[in-house]
Amino acid sequence: MTKIKAGIINVTGYAGIELARLLYRHPMVELCSVSGRSAAGQKIADVFPHAADIRLSIDADVKDVDVAFSAMPHKASAEVILPLFKKGVKIVDISADFRLKDAGDYPKWYDFTHPAADLLQQAVYGLPEFHRSDIANAVLVANPGCYPTGALLALGPAVKAGIVHPDIIIDSKSGVSGAGRSLNLTTHFCEAVDSVSAYALKGHRHFPEIVQELHGLNAGLDLSVTFLPHLIPMTRGILSTCYAQVKDGALKSGGGELMELYRDFYKDEPFVRVVSSPPGTKHTWGSNLCLIHPYFDNDSGRIIIISAIDNLVKGAAGQAIQNMNIMMGWPETTGLEALPVYP
Amino acid sequence: MTKIKAGIINVTGYAGIELARLLYRHPMVELCSVSGRSAAGQKIADVFPHAADIRLSIDADVKDVDVAFSAMPHKASAEVILPLFKKGVKIVDISADFRLKDAGDYPKWYDFTHPAADLLQQAVYGLPEFHRSDIANAVLVANPGCYPTGALLALGPAVKAGIVHPDIIIDSKSGVSGAGRSLNLTTHFCEAVDSVSAYALKGHRHFPEIVQELHGLNAGLDLSVTFLPHLIPMTRGILSTCYAQVKDGALKSGGGELMELYRDFYKDEPFVRVVSSPPGTKHTWGSNLCLIHPYFDNDSGRIIIISAIDNLVKGAAGQAIQNMNIMMGWPETTGLEALPVYP
Amino acid sequence: MTKIKAGIINVTGYAGIELARLLYRHPMVELCSVSGRSAAGQKIADVFPHAADIRLSIDADVKDVDVAFSAMPHKASAEVILPLFKKGVKIVDISADFRLKDAGDYPKWYDFTHPAADLLQQAVYGLPEFHRSDIANAVLVANPGCYPTGALLALGPAVKAGIVHPDIIIDSKSGVSGAGRSLNLTTHFCEAVDSVSAYALKGHRHFPEIVQELHGLNAGLDLSVTFLPHLIPMTRGILSTCYAQVKDGALKSGGGELMELYRDFYKDEPFVRVVSSPPGTKHTWGSNLCLIHPYFDNDSGRIIIISAIDNLVKGAAGQAIQNMNIMMGWPETTGLEALPVYP
Amino acid sequence: MTKIKAGIINVTGYAGIELARLLYRHPMVELCSVSGRSAAGQKIADVFPHAADIRLSIDADVKDVDVAFSAMPHKASAEVILPLFKKGVKIVDISADFRLKDAGDYPKWYDFTHPAADLLQQAVYGLPEFHRSDIANAVLVANPGCYPTGALLALGPAVKAGIVHPDIIIDSKSGVSGAGRSLNLTTHFCEAVDSVSAYALKGHRHFPEIVQELHGLNAGLDLSVTFLPHLIPMTRGILSTCYAQVKDGALKSGGGELMELYRDFYKDEPFVRVVSSPPGTKHTWGSNLCLIHPYFDNDSGRIIIISAIDNLVKGAAGQAIQNMNIMMGWPETTGLEALPVYP
Repeated sequence: MTKIKAGIINVTGYAGIELARLLYRHPMVELCSVSGRSAAGQKIADVFPHAADIRLSIDADVKDVDVAFSAMPHKASAEVILPLFKKGVKIVDISADFRLKDAGDYPKWYDFTHPAADLLQQAVYGLPEFHRSDIANAVLVANPGCYPTGALLALGPAVKAGIVHPDIIIDSKSGVSGAGRSLNLTTHFCEAVDSVSAYALKGHRHFPEIVQELHGLNAGLDLSVTFLPHLIPMTRGILSTCYAQVKDGALKSGGGELMELYRDFYKDEPFVRVVSSPPGTKHTWGSNLCLIHPYFDNDSGRIIIISAIDNLVKGAAGQAIQNMNIMMGWPETTGLEALPVYP
Repeated sequence: MTKIKAGIINVTGYAGIELARLLYRHPMVELCSVSGRSAAGQKIADVFPHAADIRLSIDADVKDVDVAFSAMPHKASAEVILPLFKKGVKIVDISADFRLKDAGDYPKWYDFTHPAADLLQQAVYGLPEFHRSDIANAVLVANPGCYPTGALLALGPAVKAGIVHPDIIIDSKSGVSGAGRSLNLTTHFCEAVDSVSAYALKGHRHFPEIVQELHGLNAGLDLSVTFLPHLIPMTRGILSTCYAQVKDGALKSGGGELMELYRDFYKDEPFVRVVSSPPGTKHTWGSNLCLIHPYFDNDSGRIIIISAIDNLVKGAAGQAIQNMNIMMGWPETTGLEALPVYP
Repeated sequence: MTKIKAGIINVTGYAGIELARLLYRHPMVELCSVSGRSAAGQKIADVFPHAADIRLSIDADVKDVDVAFSAMPHKASAEVILPLFKKGVKIVDISADFRLKDAGDYPKWYDFTHPAADLLQQAVYGLPEFHRSDIANAVLVANPGCYPTGALLALGPAVKAGIVHPDIIIDSKSGVSGAGRSLNLTTHFCEAVDSVSAYALKGHRHFPEIVQELHGLNAGLDLSVTFLPHLIPMTRGILSTCYAQVKDGALKSGGGELMELYRDFYKDEPFVRVVSSPPGTKHTWGSNLCLIHPYFDNDSGRIIIISAIDNLVKGAAGQAIQNMNIMMGWPETTGLEALPVYP
Repeated sequence: MTKIKAGIINVTGYAGIELARLLYRHPMVELCSVSGRSAAGQKIADVFPHAADIRLSIDADVKDVDVAFSAMPHKASAEVILPLFKKGVKIVDISADFRLKDAGDYPKWYDFTHPAADLLQQAVYGLPEFHRSDIANAVLVANPGCYPTGALLALGPAVKAGIVHPDIIIDSKSGVSGAGRSLNLTTHFCEAVDSVSAYALKGHRHFPEIVQELHGLNAGLDLSVTFLPHLIPMTRGILSTCYAQVKDGALKSGGGELMELYRDFYKDEPFVRVVSSPPGTKHTWGSNLCLIHPYFDNDSGRIIIISAIDNLVKGAAGQAIQNMNIMMGWPETTGLEALPVYP
């Protein structure tokens, strides 16, 4: 069986090298080209000792690939993707550049005018649990942000079923790798360790993506979402705690009904597991799993839905490979079967 | 000037030994008796190498003290406090045994029938920012729980001012020391590190305390509170993120008005600091400070109030000493002036 | 191709469940029986959420297996292994029970009289890099301790080549998972985090194993070894820093000669990588790699050899599978090809 | 009683702000001037929220002080100190610029020619346990490096007593704050956490300082020292494990004799505590303590001396204040009496 040729654009960030780790073990793929401007000319082994088995040099650009994964920052990603797209290369873009359908959101949230607004409708938002069939037919998949992945999987069933009021609060807790590999004081060990803090109170860039997709599930809800991310002293993982008020008349049978709604919604999903006790992010470390615990509090009439993911896998590189698998018609779990590393 | 004699009941837990650390440097107090059943007969230096300068042996009981701090577990605390109380010893109880005014809450939340229900009204809830004058006249002060301290200081001004709807969500993140020094799998290093999880979804024991005190601030609000604690891989610190919807007509001038409300409420408080950016728990490490950041989101009409404390200091031992200072008529900051240890 | 049936004795510790994680993805093995007294009757998913894909119940004993891995504590391991051994089951024992050739070492170091001293000569010390051909013919392999694995791989080439004086110092730094999953104050999060300490100054049980194997490499050296382990606030990993004085006349050409000696010694080894800069344990996380950096200090005439492993993989479960692969005649890397998880 | 005026040069690094934390509570000192080029014009509260109680602005230079602490990098420190020295300001220099007596060491180890070589003999190496009386008479004190402080206190008694052979190995483990507050990949949270590594194998700048001072204790020993530092995933603390061979005839009575030698050497020292079990760095967190555990291994004839300090206190800011106290003739513990913060 012939393997397809895959390339990673910007392998030198955490999402990029995580793609390399996973693709290296993918049975249908040959990772044959990786790029990264800051390290161009170096071997992967020199920059990433853990990945020395991948005997590739880092180039300025990827070339001659059937599928390309972009882990570039926003704006730069669109620029490098467009020529590949025109050549017919299948693309999974880990940046935000093709996630939002409304081109007007880019100047507002990302400070740039989108260079290919016409492609926004053609690109598919790559959350397989919501858009599997569109992904299967896509050439350009916009891989969801790490926070949206956890929040949408947590809220999706409740929002789609219309059992909640539109006031939704998402309190997310992320490990430090979500802030990337570049240097700033926030991610200095001595500043990040032994501390928790909230950030982006004035609005996080993942906000419009969450709203867009929740709206897509249930256009009738006049959503009022608050999304607040927190930085946690750990490397990987996002825990999203989502709160919403249940509509009168919904969940009459109580928490069991909620649990059943969730189990049913995700019953065929290979990577989403509805669990009966609150999950720890540690139990997803290194894997593409999303653990979800739905809870209904009778006294307050509120539901609490908690999801746990590894932000670099289901929140980035793993989901990108899941999307590629779907695009290629392969079994969705190919190359993603390893269990989380615990403890 | 004669120092008063102080004792610590159950010095062998984290709150107990933190009391010892702080009292050792208190200029008006001589720490002269500490108890701890599991380590009775041992010297403090043998159990706690960092505190070897405190040249005391751990006894089975404290004796001959003017003021006693109890760091016993609930139920046991009331039992050991009552005889001291009858002898006229001033008491600060770090357990929950005298926090709740309704004796019926004890069987419900703590699984025991209160042995001195008549004292519940006499005991004063020791949150100085809310009950300073009562504390000054009290003989028995019930030191607040760690979560309630952070949550109440965050929500107090808004609730008292009546600017919010009664639906309140408190999403708290606590370091592991809050779970105590006894052994269980949850606090095993390898289980707690690199992970975040929620717990006590069915109701945490600090819940009734939060509701009681918020109700005390504004009896007109028909509160519906959700309080959810999370375990974070760090030793000290609680960050509480509180969400509430603003009433129509309130905060017409926007976030500045909210900030002013908070600054005004806490303007004379020595330990509460209203800050203009989201605080990290690290910036309170080892100190009695509470940092509060109030934020108003115009789009959703929601306020987000974030507070950061050190759970072992303002959430336990430091606040207990603050209470003693008030009870004794001393300057409130006596013995609590040290800056946080950073980084 | 028929898979062989494998069982794990005592799956409920960290080494046991790590075996399960790795065996689950081994293409030649069906993990069909796991035991663990403390959790007998429970499903793996209930005890280890990360491993829920392994749909097995935990039994009191393993049964009907072709190969058994024992992750029992010492003494108990020998007891449970012996009947299986008599039935012809191939065994990899992760405990210390068959590592030492001198039965007299067991009362001295492990406080018990060995129940099958005659088997000690028959058992093979399972460090493939030293004993590959014996392992290939063995029925009972004694998997090395985590510290000996790192120390022996670091020191082996220099000791065998006879370039060093017999005074050797091994200063090892281990993550907390090496202390196991059972509860004690040392592994409480709040005690282990933010701290480093040495332990076992009077002699660690891995000491005789290190001496035995170094002696086996070069019986002419009258070894005087000091081995001192330290506990480090991280979950996985052992870094061993080894110091020895170079004999007069050796390494005349300097550090390059040392590097060449090491590269040559390990040139065909799939899991040992001689690296040109000091390794971090993080770069082995979750993998069977051993990274070794040999350094020669001309001024002092001393060599410093540093090795990094993941104590639960190359130091336990991974090496056990490597041993099984050799015993079965399979490619040695089967099931162990995944890259480390970084960051 | 009139307080003296103190200033901190370069308050914006970890040692500088730690000086501020400690000086703020020093009863004989008024901290009245702090400098820091990168943050000049900002308030301390803006850069360091934990230290908001210190109501000072950060200036370009310190002025009008009786005593100045320099936390500048090497070379820059000498340049800024010299004019102050000429004005008669007492100086404690935390940089390396006046630690080495041989001016030729500066080009070799620090890549610059010393601008005031004549002052090197006049400056006093500020390890009070070795040079107390000289410090008392000094105007310029060179505060020891963090590693030398721990290593020298560990080895001092044995080297001075001449009981060891001159081959000495110092294996040190340091928290990340030792690497400073400036940004580089090594101190990125995701790179430093969950990992241990050695560095500076080719020679660390603290090496000549260690050798100079050990030589000063016992000029008859022809020392051959290996010093190897390691980076540990924690914020504060250095553990130094020191190995040396005992001379024939020494320590005939065994480990008790070694313990007695150490207890006697340090019997009047306020900050050095000889302890009977291996110390954890955590037990010095935030304090000026040095915990030392001397151990004699009869079998190998080797001693192992372990010391634990907080690198930012006894290894930097605390020792600087201890030195000032001695220079001023105050009780040596003034302002340094607080217990370590545990856990």
